[in-house]
Amino acid sequence: MKPIKVGLLGIGTVGAGTFNVLARNQEEITRRAGRGIEIIAVADLNTARANELTGGKCKVVADAREIVNDPEIDIVIELIGGYGIARELVLQAIANGKHVVTANKALLATHGNEIFAAAQAKGVMVAFEAAVAGGIPIIKSLREGLTANRIQWLAGIINGTTNFILSEMRDKGLDFDTVLKEAQRLGYAEADPTFDIEGVDAAHKATIMSAIAFGIPVQFDKAHVEGITKLQAVDIQYAEQLGYRIKLLGIAKRAVVNGVEGIELRVHPTLIPAKRLIANVEGAMNAVLVQGDAVGATLYYGKGAGAEPTASAVIADLVDITRLATADPEHRVPHLAFQPNALTDIQILPMSEITTSYYLRLNVVDQPGVLADLTRILADATISIDAMMQKEPADNETRTDIVILTHQTQEKNVVAAIAKMEALSTVLGEVTKIRLENLS
Amino acid sequence: MKPIKVGLLGIGTVGAGTFNVLARNQEEITRRAGRGIEIIAVADLNTARANELTGGKCKVVADAREIVNDPEIDIVIELIGGYGIARELVLQAIANGKHVVTANKALLATHGNEIFAAAQAKGVMVAFEAAVAGGIPIIKSLREGLTANRIQWLAGIINGTTNFILSEMRDKGLDFDTVLKEAQRLGYAEADPTFDIEGVDAAHKATIMSAIAFGIPVQFDKAHVEGITKLQAVDIQYAEQLGYRIKLLGIAKRAVVNGVEGIELRVHPTLIPAKRLIANVEGAMNAVLVQGDAVGATLYYGKGAGAEPTASAVIADLVDITRLATADPEHRVPHLAFQPNALTDIQILPMSEITTSYYLRLNVVDQPGVLADLTRILADATISIDAMMQKEPADNETRTDIVILTHQTQEKNVVAAIAKMEALSTVLGEVTKIRLENLS
Repeated sequence: MKPIKVGLLGIGTVGAGTFNVLARNQEEITRRAGRGIEIIAVADLNTARANELTGGKCKVVADAREIVNDPEIDIVIELIGGYGIARELVLQAIANGKHVVTANKALLATHGNEIFAAAQAKGVMVAFEAAVAGGIPIIKSLREGLTANRIQWLAGIINGTTNFILSEMRDKGLDFDTVLKEAQRLGYAEADPTFDIEGVDAAHKATIMSAIAFGIPVQFDKAHVEGITKLQAVDIQYAEQLGYRIKLLGIAKRAVVNGVEGIELRVHPTLIPAKRLIANVEGAMNAVLVQGDAVGATLYYGKGAGAEPTASAVIADLVDITRLATADPEHRVPHLAFQPNALTDIQILPMSEITTSYYLRLNVVDQPGVLADLTRILADATISIDAMMQKEPADNETRTDIVILTHQTQEKNVVAAIAKMEALSTVLGEVTKIRLENLS
Repeated sequence: MKPIKVGLLGIGTVGAGTFNVLARNQEEITRRAGRGIEIIAVADLNTARANELTGGKCKVVADAREIVNDPEIDIVIELIGGYGIARELVLQAIANGKHVVTANKALLATHGNEIFAAAQAKGVMVAFEAAVAGGIPIIKSLREGLTANRIQWLAGIINGTTNFILSEMRDKGLDFDTVLKEAQRLGYAEADPTFDIEGVDAAHKATIMSAIAFGIPVQFDKAHVEGITKLQAVDIQYAEQLGYRIKLLGIAKRAVVNGVEGIELRVHPTLIPAKRLIANVEGAMNAVLVQGDAVGATLYYGKGAGAEPTASAVIADLVDITRLATADPEHRVPHLAFQPNALTDIQILPMSEITTSYYLRLNVVDQPGVLADLTRILADATISIDAMMQKEPADNETRTDIVILTHQTQEKNVVAAIAKMEALSTVLGEVTKIRLENLS
């Protein structure tokens, strides 16, 4: 059979990785796919670099439209990123009857519904294993490996930059700003790290996984997004003393509020029991923990970024498409795991309605009655206390830290209780609130 | 579309789990598959129990041949186990043009080549996600998720019984026999635990994974199989003191010996650095670590046995087959990951040719010159020492333990060196040898 023909949009880090891995493992990949997979054209504004990287082995053009409109091309790989031109090109490729492989989580989390509908209408596939957790086959596992299950929740370390920063903060006791600079120097954080450290990238990925897990449309605008920029070294230490690690988790979870089913979709720093396997995922590594009703907990771990790990996912998608290109569309795996006419309208819950446990840190005046006031406020809000730790004040200090771990309660209860605590004259400054998940 | 019709052979633990999960999650599964999946007949010698479990919702027969020969049935699930009647029934189902789903690792590891060839000739699928690591989608991940990669090695904790026993031995400092009895009492070990504790079950699974990883036929007869029955509590303690855990690993690895490529296929107790994620997989859980040249290391973790976790894998296979039943056979995922005409004849290496590191424990007479003799034997065999630990003799004892960790060397070198050590008058009894893998 003739090789399937691929056009590559954008030959940056991942694009070059894809080109190289496909060339290096060509024989092995063909033995699996039963058919060659050939990148015949690359589009990049930097044509000189593109020519250098491809070594004259394929056509190089500056205008991505040439590839999207090339009738010879069967599959377009979109590695440009962002929501603007990438969206246009993907939609044009679909309109031209081409299958699309993309690593663009921002695009799919925000415009996925439009893109998948267009692909469905045209009978082409849009594959995106590389959009979540790099080379870990988490999309395939969720979408095909766990089809027997009603997924109850998933929680993932799905941003390597923030996990690297948190690991370093813990290991070396350094504060966020210092470690961020180090991460930038080492290439683990970008010059503008906003999307990573503010949790936006993780929220894009959590949004995509929530759709696949529960059979709902992608709804990034309803996700709660909270990064790690306000985390203090002292919270990491206190968490450690209590037997927890702090990780930035992307969480998607079924919940029932007032008898109505809803979905929690949230990204925030989270205390996790240190003995959990996922609590021990360090450095820039990624891991996703999925709870299904039949299988129980399964975990998927690996590199979440980088040229070749991401290329691994891009090429796995190319092989899948190569296999299914001639199958009739209704027998392919649905884009969002569930058949398009079988998506449900379960609502994503507002953050005030979610239920979890909490770590609260208060800086207080060290005088009698403070604890009584705090515990009274919690009792009035029907929040029960799981653990409490009061630090000795430092020499010549009249203030000290109190740390409280609560049992499960609704976010709005905790928010209200915190407001009352902050109104006490003995509580200094703001109360630090970090959510806690047992993941069991 | 009409539901696809399934016949179930054997309704024991996993069969009942499959029946129940399919009924409970019917709506969710249909939303994914785009088509209903219906068990219309069950065969079990215990028809009374089968009738009770299925609650009159499907036909129950005693003779499995009735199902295998039923023209109405599209897919046969084989959950009988063993190599005898199960093999006959699977081959007959294939001959009758039915797809087969099986959890039978013993059957596939020993008769897989015959079965896959028959399925290939007939254009039907034989799916076996449930045969390895229960509900963890490891077959799918290896076969479809990592298609971009040249797999370099994989190492798995793929037998829950032995992992439970090793975890208990470490946690409680108990010896093997005591913990085995406890495991039997708790239902983690069978009345006849031979296949588990002697490593045979793990070797079946490792054999299947080796085929998929490297594109070779299944060759169980060439696997090195070593169980945990000879492990002593003291070795687990010494390993711990040196920073290692002992796990029963199934290992499949590319190696080059004298310029010729070969495959190491081996199951044995293994020291692993305690800080590795897989070293912290405790109790009856399973995990498989896979090293690909592009993706690096990925790890898959979950329950490796039990009614519903295994059912999760069986049903995932049913959904895959339901999707691909109408696709032309050459576009399906090949049984052993590589196209049947693209399997290679890389040889599985004899154990003497494999390369790894070693933990050696010697009971010696506590007198001058012993260490000099031992280190001379190792030096002569060009085996270098990574770490050494000599225990203080107990009061009134003249003998003590010496533990040596070696750097990488060939098995035959170590075997020869051990023979020389055992010939020394100062070395008492046999030298304990446990292999050590860094897994990095």
